[in-house]
Amino acid sequence: MDNQQLLGLIDKMTLEEKIAQLVQLAAPFYEGADDEGQITGPMQAMGITDSMVASSGSILGYAGAAGAIAVQEAHLAKNPHGIPLLFMADIVHGFKTIFPVPLAIGCSWDTELAERSAEIAAREAAVSGIHVTFAPMVDLVRDPRWGRVMESTGEDPYLNSLFARAFVRGLQGDDLQAEAERVAACVKHFAAYGASEAGRDYNTVDLSERQLREYYLPAYKAALDEGCEMVMTSFNTIDGIPASANEKLMRDLLREEWKFDGVLISDWGAVKELIPHGVAEDEREAAYRAIRAGVDIEMMTACYVHELPELVRGGQVDEALVDESVLRILQLKNKLGLFERPHRGANPEREAEVVFSREHREAAYELATKSTVLLKNDGVLPIRPEAKVALIGPFANSGDILGPWSWSGSTEDAVRLDGALAERLGAGNLIVAEGCGIESGTEQQLREALEAAVQADVIVLALGEASEMSGEAGCRTDIRLPQAQLELVALIAELRKPTAAVLFNGRPLDLHGVYDKLGAVVEAWFPGSEGGAAVADILIGAVNPSARLSMSFPHSVGQVPVYYNHFNTGRPLGADDAQVRYVSQYLDAPNDPLLPFGFGLSYTTFEYGSLKLSSDKLPGDSRLTVSIDVTNTGERAGTETVQLYIRDIAGEVVRPVRELKGFVKLDLAPGEVGTAVFTLGEEQLRYHHADLSFKSDPGRFDVFVGRSSLDTQQGSFVLTNA
Amino acid sequence: MDNQQLLGLIDKMTLEEKIAQLVQLAAPFYEGADDEGQITGPMQAMGITDSMVASSGSILGYAGAAGAIAVQEAHLAKNPHGIPLLFMADIVHGFKTIFPVPLAIGCSWDTELAERSAEIAAREAAVSGIHVTFAPMVDLVRDPRWGRVMESTGEDPYLNSLFARAFVRGLQGDDLQAEAERVAACVKHFAAYGASEAGRDYNTVDLSERQLREYYLPAYKAALDEGCEMVMTSFNTIDGIPASANEKLMRDLLREEWKFDGVLISDWGAVKELIPHGVAEDEREAAYRAIRAGVDIEMMTACYVHELPELVRGGQVDEALVDESVLRILQLKNKLGLFERPHRGANPEREAEVVFSREHREAAYELATKSTVLLKNDGVLPIRPEAKVALIGPFANSGDILGPWSWSGSTEDAVRLDGALAERLGAGNLIVAEGCGIESGTEQQLREALEAAVQADVIVLALGEASEMSGEAGCRTDIRLPQAQLELVALIAELRKPTAAVLFNGRPLDLHGVYDKLGAVVEAWFPGSEGGAAVADILIGAVNPSARLSMSFPHSVGQVPVYYNHFNTGRPLGADDAQVRYVSQYLDAPNDPLLPFGFGLSYTTFEYGSLKLSSDKLPGDSRLTVSIDVTNTGERAGTETVQLYIRDIAGEVVRPVRELKGFVKLDLAPGEVGTAVFTLGEEQLRYHHADLSFKSDPGRFDVFVGRSSLDTQQGSFVLTNA
Repeated sequence: MDNQQLLGLIDKMTLEEKIAQLVQLAAPFYEGADDEGQITGPMQAMGITDSMVASSGSILGYAGAAGAIAVQEAHLAKNPHGIPLLFMADIVHGFKTIFPVPLAIGCSWDTELAERSAEIAAREAAVSGIHVTFAPMVDLVRDPRWGRVMESTGEDPYLNSLFARAFVRGLQGDDLQAEAERVAACVKHFAAYGASEAGRDYNTVDLSERQLREYYLPAYKAALDEGCEMVMTSFNTIDGIPASANEKLMRDLLREEWKFDGVLISDWGAVKELIPHGVAEDEREAAYRAIRAGVDIEMMTACYVHELPELVRGGQVDEALVDESVLRILQLKNKLGLFERPHRGANPEREAEVVFSREHREAAYELATKSTVLLKNDGVLPIRPEAKVALIGPFANSGDILGPWSWSGSTEDAVRLDGALAERLGAGNLIVAEGCGIESGTEQQLREALEAAVQADVIVLALGEASEMSGEAGCRTDIRLPQAQLELVALIAELRKPTAAVLFNGRPLDLHGVYDKLGAVVEAWFPGSEGGAAVADILIGAVNPSARLSMSFPHSVGQVPVYYNHFNTGRPLGADDAQVRYVSQYLDAPNDPLLPFGFGLSYTTFEYGSLKLSSDKLPGDSRLTVSIDVTNTGERAGTETVQLYIRDIAGEVVRPVRELKGFVKLDLAPGEVGTAVFTLGEEQLRYHHADLSFKSDPGRFDVFVGRSSLDTQQGSFVLTNA
Repeated sequence: MDNQQLLGLIDKMTLEEKIAQLVQLAAPFYEGADDEGQITGPMQAMGITDSMVASSGSILGYAGAAGAIAVQEAHLAKNPHGIPLLFMADIVHGFKTIFPVPLAIGCSWDTELAERSAEIAAREAAVSGIHVTFAPMVDLVRDPRWGRVMESTGEDPYLNSLFARAFVRGLQGDDLQAEAERVAACVKHFAAYGASEAGRDYNTVDLSERQLREYYLPAYKAALDEGCEMVMTSFNTIDGIPASANEKLMRDLLREEWKFDGVLISDWGAVKELIPHGVAEDEREAAYRAIRAGVDIEMMTACYVHELPELVRGGQVDEALVDESVLRILQLKNKLGLFERPHRGANPEREAEVVFSREHREAAYELATKSTVLLKNDGVLPIRPEAKVALIGPFANSGDILGPWSWSGSTEDAVRLDGALAERLGAGNLIVAEGCGIESGTEQQLREALEAAVQADVIVLALGEASEMSGEAGCRTDIRLPQAQLELVALIAELRKPTAAVLFNGRPLDLHGVYDKLGAVVEAWFPGSEGGAAVADILIGAVNPSARLSMSFPHSVGQVPVYYNHFNTGRPLGADDAQVRYVSQYLDAPNDPLLPFGFGLSYTTFEYGSLKLSSDKLPGDSRLTVSIDVTNTGERAGTETVQLYIRDIAGEVVRPVRELKGFVKLDLAPGEVGTAVFTLGEEQLRYHHADLSFKSDPGRFDVFVGRSSLDTQQGSFVLTNA
């Protein structure tokens, strides 16, 4: 269809039919869904009528090719204008083939693999009948108490932006008409959901517009610049107004300033939640505020269908606002080819062929190996081939390694660590014991653990958080491992044998009781379907770990938020003229995190040469080259991620002590020398000034290159007017 | 002098002389100071010359009548225009007679006593030669990690504003010419210093302008409305720019919008700190930015004297800016009567008479009794007269109960708990043991503690933080009592005897290991010079405790910030339709603090009648009366602080779940019934709207009256247009 035809279609629709396009309901509301018998209750409770469902625009969380075809057919049979449903779902880090959680993917610093993971997720989703995924989630995160940090790629706006683009490219490709390959992306959660106060989910967000624009917005913008079709509102307030009612954010910034003309959807229930938030007295006011803010689709509540008809007829809401929203939804359906092929990619044969295919699982394996961060290694790893290994802990034999947001994935299908290690070491060399459960254990379990440990040359403790301990609403005030696991660690550590912890979890943890007690620590995050295989290959050295943290690990929760790109303060710790007491510090903890952004170890060693700058001046219209030689001085091939940071010495407003501006991955054979080359131009030195204008200032900049945000060499240059 | 004469004086001054008026140096820089021989080093290091000192405008931190007279005389002899020095100092909660720390005073909810404490501090300071005190500190605080919470009256803008006014009234009185009685006040730290990120002192502050105006600014404004003469800049950034360079904050808001025409002083070193902050490349740029922002006095750095002469001569800084600052400083000197009586109140005889007088100490005692909060009492307190008491702990015999910012106070003079209790109980009924030090202890100490405890009927554990564990730069990531003290508690608790903890400390603590183990907990804060006497009288029941927390006690640091006037979120815990998981909550802790704002116990009990509203409608031009009967149902006279909170059900922006709007103290004899009567008018229902306009909306409000922010009865009314 062309736009004229879409407008013509809208002309033919009644007000109620148009408004129904703006509602999104879950699968049980639709005939043909598996649990069709269950819906009477919720439908009645929500005041949803059959005709609203028949005219509704989209369905949430339904997957499966045959069923999707049936639902769509039934819907078309009932819909007065033959408008197909949009099928949307949360495909966040894989559909059936589950990739590592996004925070782990962030630690890969590998945007190509990230793109490939999204491409595979899109393919599996598309053939299963899904048209739109609620991804990527690109919220900047600094507080590990918040359960949804596992959904983000981390604390850096630059790195998050690269991943945002990669995910959108992977999901959408070049052509949304590639119906069996691609789905539309929906970037979320707009905006600044990651700044939830006190790390508690759905909580208030308060920050300055400067902070918002400088740190939190870039990744959303990057996704949109990459062509992301949809945007989802966040649950939180921003500047005192919930995102779903925030005209300044949605109309002024997203629509006017950024020229976004795609579909804006509320998060689950977020329109009706304007009532408990306290900015709407009732559903009518909630509908009024959301449509005025520009929310096109109301997910899972019924304020629009209940209230918009009267609001429009009463003249409080201009029908043009409704028409605008309907048009955007129809345009998206049209882009996806749904008017011509309402079943789009849904195809049971293709589904059977591609979903969870060997090729897809291999990609998941590869990304898992690239996402696993070696945090500490005092010679414990890799495990020597002949070693007798005790694998102990609640994650020794657990399929709960997919992580939150893997609803189509199966923990049964996940490769577990015990099986993978047995395969590699030979069953005779592996003794497995549970040691304890995730949150509690018994004396008997501890005895068995000890028995296993004493027989072994090397001990691997497989520890972590259950997947429901992170993810949405999975917030913790105590970010240590549960006490039962810490007791297991303490017991095993007393043996003073070579011991490595492998951590399966969804957030940076306070590692007291682990990092200080054991010789090696491997952060596997939730590594996905092939997690056990990937971790096993890292443990035995078949793969050399290369990942780097994309979010800082605090010493303790009392240090939170702690992140690398902070300000210097007027009394920085460690300054030459610093007093003993009156500096910005804690009495009982360092300022730096335990493990900083960019940190990660390898089984080989890399030696850095001297930092070279092509000039100590950067004219505004020119470019500067920064380079450094890196030598693999160890015995194994490995990958080093060379990172470049800058610091603007004196800005109109304060600039961070370091800002990531580039990184280069060097794959180096033993003895090989590689050169990391970066170019810097004026446009990378811009920031939001006092009046929020985005530009650079002439003046001195420091440049830092090295292996983490805290382990660098320093140079400097002066930016001059062109 | 009149203003014309002051202007004439400025006309006669050289540029250098004028700029020197803007510098403030510490006592050692002045001849006649006790340690005059010591200054060569710092003077040379700072590049301060004799002539700069001779023309300088003010001196910092000097006290003592005879010395002050000598310093002023020597200065007048050298100053080319005979302009007297201003003597400024930090008199925060008493001069020599030390009152409880401000956070404790906040818990008194007694603004009359607070005013009296300031009046006494002013008198003692004035006769000792001080003209201006850097008080009140009115920063709103929500993060107990920050050491300076002890300097604030707490987390509520309304209560803080009342105290801000009370302190200013007490310090300044009606007439600054009352030279032996009053000093000028300097409200600090402007602005929002209390929001230091991660509770680390001097750290970045980032918040929305809405948050700033609604919560953080009111107390500063209240102080200025009360006539406060001076303002001090804060160390932190605000909206990306350090306060001392923040034109929007200082020029636009403080000067233009609020019409403040008094003296604005930097905090210690804050002008030069613009360099490490990263908004000035060197001292010249620091001076340029600070004078443009409107900082009149540069405290303890020399950017102005070094750089302003050339900046003015080079035309970068208008000399009018310098003249403006000089005029403000001279006006303040004139208001204080210094031109006529340069020694002002400094008077050795009067000093000997009033400083630390019996009358003053009695006021300190009274305020300490009113500031001590009974947090828990399972029948342990008050101690019966005949009981044998073991007093155990590092604060049993400690003079370190004055708290930070009591530099003129003497810990030797402080009334200690052991002595005070011995006096009251009779020495034979009191056994004292140290138990442990503040941060460490010995087995021997524990044994002695146990020996003491087993002999006693009642055990009092005197625990807490050393004063340097809070206050400026006294920040902690772990806000529990130190481990040694928790071990002492655990040991004593095993005896299962009636045991009360008395806490001496500067912040809300995580009370795990104390609150859950002992039958009674008394929060004495740092109670000041008469602390031991006040606490002893509470323990034995000679005084019935009446204080109420003005800052929430979190369950743990992982809950921080937790404060009573938060937003509801879209998914509030405890809503009727709340899901089990998907609500705003932690998996491992409640949302509410352990002890909420407004909480505090008494030795008697109070029963509340039913809440009465004079109407369920409040026309905008009318008033509503809210009343409730309270009966003292116990055996002792006591004071109940009846609190009124409101909630705006649906605002244009989100309104807090509760906002304190009034409180009434009822002194009730056993069996007596009192009535708390409140009036509410439209002006109390205003808030900052989306466009930051300050007004109310018609609509429904809930009103809550009760004994704490979480223990109330609820009514509601509708605000209508007049």
